[in-house]
Amino acid sequence: MDERIERLLQMYERARLGRHLGMRLRFEDGRAVVELPHAPHLDHALGGIHGGVFATLIDTAAWFAVAVHYETWIATIEFHTRLLEAVRGEGLVATGTLVRAGRRLATATAEVRTASGTTAAFGSASFTVTPLEID
Amino acid sequence: MDERIERLLQMYERARLGRHLGMRLRFEDGRAVVELPHAPHLDHALGGIHGGVFATLIDTAAWFAVAVHYETWIATIEFHTRLLEAVRGEGLVATGTLVRAGRRLATATAEVRTASGTTAAFGSASFTVTPLEID
Amino acid sequence: MDERIERLLQMYERARLGRHLGMRLRFEDGRAVVELPHAPHLDHALGGIHGGVFATLIDTAAWFAVAVHYETWIATIEFHTRLLEAVRGEGLVATGTLVRAGRRLATATAEVRTASGTTAAFGSASFTVTPLEID
Amino acid sequence: MDERIERLLQMYERARLGRHLGMRLRFEDGRAVVELPHAPHLDHALGGIHGGVFATLIDTAAWFAVAVHYETWIATIEFHTRLLEAVRGEGLVATGTLVRAGRRLATATAEVRTASGTTAAFGSASFTVTPLEID
Repeated sequence: MDERIERLLQMYERARLGRHLGMRLRFEDGRAVVELPHAPHLDHALGGIHGGVFATLIDTAAWFAVAVHYETWIATIEFHTRLLEAVRGEGLVATGTLVRAGRRLATATAEVRTASGTTAAFGSASFTVTPLEID
Repeated sequence: MDERIERLLQMYERARLGRHLGMRLRFEDGRAVVELPHAPHLDHALGGIHGGVFATLIDTAAWFAVAVHYETWIATIEFHTRLLEAVRGEGLVATGTLVRAGRRLATATAEVRTASGTTAAFGSASFTVTPLEID
Repeated sequence: MDERIERLLQMYERARLGRHLGMRLRFEDGRAVVELPHAPHLDHALGGIHGGVFATLIDTAAWFAVAVHYETWIATIEFHTRLLEAVRGEGLVATGTLVRAGRRLATATAEVRTASGTTAAFGSASFTVTPLEID
Repeated sequence: MDERIERLLQMYERARLGRHLGMRLRFEDGRAVVELPHAPHLDHALGGIHGGVFATLIDTAAWFAVAVHYETWIATIEFHTRLLEAVRGEGLVATGTLVRAGRRLATATAEVRTASGTTAAFGSASFTVTPLEID
């Protein structure tokens, strides 16, 4: 698995959206962890962090939590985002956890916490396994 | 409703994430329409548009489709994103449509199409009505 | 498509849960319509119709709205149920509508109305296409 | 909490759908556990357990996992059901777990396992807290 993690981390370096928002990926005990320091460009009109940022964190953390279990590319089918607490001006950490890695389909959850430890959002996602190789 | 639309469009000018990604909002026949020209910063590692971008468009289009029916701020409870087609290098247009505006809760759907007309993503969202005034 | 509809209606006769709850299936203009007259066995503890009944209607209506577009069995991956209005003592009608029929994946929405016309629930679902033949 | 559990268990006795399907409720370490022995009336047309049954178990287990934290009635806003494994002829056990109990909104997850221990379905739900008393 270490080799797959290495390959995914290298691949992540090419993800433009993650860099544009300021997200950083690492793996911890088989879980994918995505950190996002606060920046004003993450906010909605009232100054809280935009729901789309939570969704992006959930999609990313869940995707990598699943991807590490496959040799080929997985494609997101759908994902769900629940916003539990409004967050203003704080960094976020999303942790993705595999629920099930099937032959054709996989499922994961992701939790987003603030730097101060509040669970701010909770999500889940389904993926389909493709034959596309990750180089 | 024209006054509310005007107020929401002004409010949208203060939304930092939308500007950071390049989204533009307008209203058409009571529907919220969010346009997003393609830019490399929207892409995931394989060069397609990141799922988080679709989710952000869905959250935004659904939010404004609902907000125009209320005097006060609405807060997103949860939203769901289904990715129907991978998209590379194309602009996107999201259209939000109200399903129901209740006293305390509201629901909307949003569809994301590519510039060439393909339905690329489909989502839905729930909102709770808050007493917070929009200025 | 008439032949497929005929085959699906025959298959539906063998669905035990539908009969146990009292659901009836028909097709109208390519949409799947599931009717459920009220019965006390549909209620939760406070006397309204149980959320699981709405989910069952949504899964069923969306499934048949999609199944009519394929030669083989489709398997539900996931479905989402939003409860918009509490319903007491009224019959329900669910209508499933295809959103997209892809080669491997399909999506549909379903709306549940009461006999008196209120939209009581709204849902959506994803399906995967299997090679299993429907006889 | 023991008193609330007692009151919820009594209330559950009046839930008609649960009895019609054969579900039994208990609490274990603060989690709501719903058991459902297999019966032919739970099946879809191909003889597996219908998706609506999994959704009903998820709604019920999540609802009680949340309800035990409130003095008044909670209303389901929405719930999501992912079907991970087809199940034929086996009993099911759903376990609901609280994610967050807020002042106005609450969230829970629920997992459905077969009697033989396979995770067959995974779901999540949002609830709104009402002023309605549970007697």
